[in-house]
Amino acid sequence: MDDVKKEGADAPADFSPTARTTLRRLPARGSFDRETVYAILDEGFVCHVGFVGDGQPFVIPTAYGRVGDTLYLHGAKASRMLKALAAGGEVCVTVTLVDGLVLARSAFHHSVNYRSVVVFGRARAVEDGGEKNAALEAFTEHVCRGRWAEVRWPTPEETAATTVVALPLEEASAKVRTGPPVDDEEDYALPVWAGVLPLRVEPGAPEADPRLPAGTPVPEYVARFDLSKRNAGR
Amino acid sequence: MDDVKKEGADAPADFSPTARTTLRRLPARGSFDRETVYAILDEGFVCHVGFVGDGQPFVIPTAYGRVGDTLYLHGAKASRMLKALAAGGEVCVTVTLVDGLVLARSAFHHSVNYRSVVVFGRARAVEDGGEKNAALEAFTEHVCRGRWAEVRWPTPEETAATTVVALPLEEASAKVRTGPPVDDEEDYALPVWAGVLPLRVEPGAPEADPRLPAGTPVPEYVARFDLSKRNAGR
Repeated sequence: MDDVKKEGADAPADFSPTARTTLRRLPARGSFDRETVYAILDEGFVCHVGFVGDGQPFVIPTAYGRVGDTLYLHGAKASRMLKALAAGGEVCVTVTLVDGLVLARSAFHHSVNYRSVVVFGRARAVEDGGEKNAALEAFTEHVCRGRWAEVRWPTPEETAATTVVALPLEEASAKVRTGPPVDDEEDYALPVWAGVLPLRVEPGAPEADPRLPAGTPVPEYVARFDLSKRNAGR
Repeated sequence: MDDVKKEGADAPADFSPTARTTLRRLPARGSFDRETVYAILDEGFVCHVGFVGDGQPFVIPTAYGRVGDTLYLHGAKASRMLKALAAGGEVCVTVTLVDGLVLARSAFHHSVNYRSVVVFGRARAVEDGGEKNAALEAFTEHVCRGRWAEVRWPTPEETAATTVVALPLEEASAKVRTGPPVDDEEDYALPVWAGVLPLRVEPGAPEADPRLPAGTPVPEYVARFDLSKRNAGR
């Protein structure tokens, strides 16, 4: 799929800070490291896409895929979001992973441990058939690596009914909070439990489709699904 | 806290559909039912706030609280987001809960089970001391009901350093997908496992702050934290 990596041919290890990716507050939590940004994008699978329509903001949750230095989004041709994105307007895509509740001794210092990525740019509609197919594969594989080889692939009609847009990963940054609460010095003496309650997205038991023939084996990538590890080290 | 419910004195059971809250696609997934919308807002605790700055969209993850028919957001005075919100520009707040991966027999019909809410409107800066205190309490209680009574409350300086904005819950809608995949009829014969992999946010073992005196008991609301039930039936 080298031909679809055009945006990232010489991608530097760090994103260049811009006015909109530079944190005004708590800059120590920010990172322009491409590896950090990609690890967060690869662990998540729902992003929140912000775009402007008639002067007002819209924020829509949607799935995504990453191929090299390009983020792909998709949807039905009739979708308001896809129309706005394909038209090339400014877009902001945010992915947030919540890692825990930070319970401080004071109300003021309560927080959340999280890892988030914000990507800015303008998307372009993907017209090339090869790039579009690679993106469709990426959407499936992003969530369930191994699934693409097993499922029925898109027909020309399905591909035509799907709008795919590409957002180059050129202007992005990560923001990360980890660790215990940070209380004011005098509050450490208070008799209040303080610490972190870790939170994790965990899979439940797979629920077979009611129409699935009995005895159809559950694939390994479903039975052993691990959100945080499934795309590690890509 | 009745005095802070001014926006919701006569809130109808259903939100009135508007052009921007009406789904253009799959309208059967949409709901304007206030109870459905509030149940989703009460289960989540991170929203994605969309606003327009210099003509471009920003999407920032942040915590929130709900008091009656008002959604409260907060942050440091210096925050770009809070400045934009306090200035009264159009805002879009989205909360998304992911319930499972929908694995169809065809790539095209893969989906995600989720519940999301989108709120549109203009925020107002909260200046009234009583309303601001009630909002600060709501932020803590929203995540950990019972915590407010145990922690050290905000000082006047901390309250002054925090910008709180109120977004009336007047224009909102929910979108929900549940159930198994829906494949094309001819694909049901394919020998591919299909179904739903449920996903849930689960707490891990509480991690005590390294500076906490040994033997400090873990509060019940931490030890038995249940994201989906903690605010049920509010």
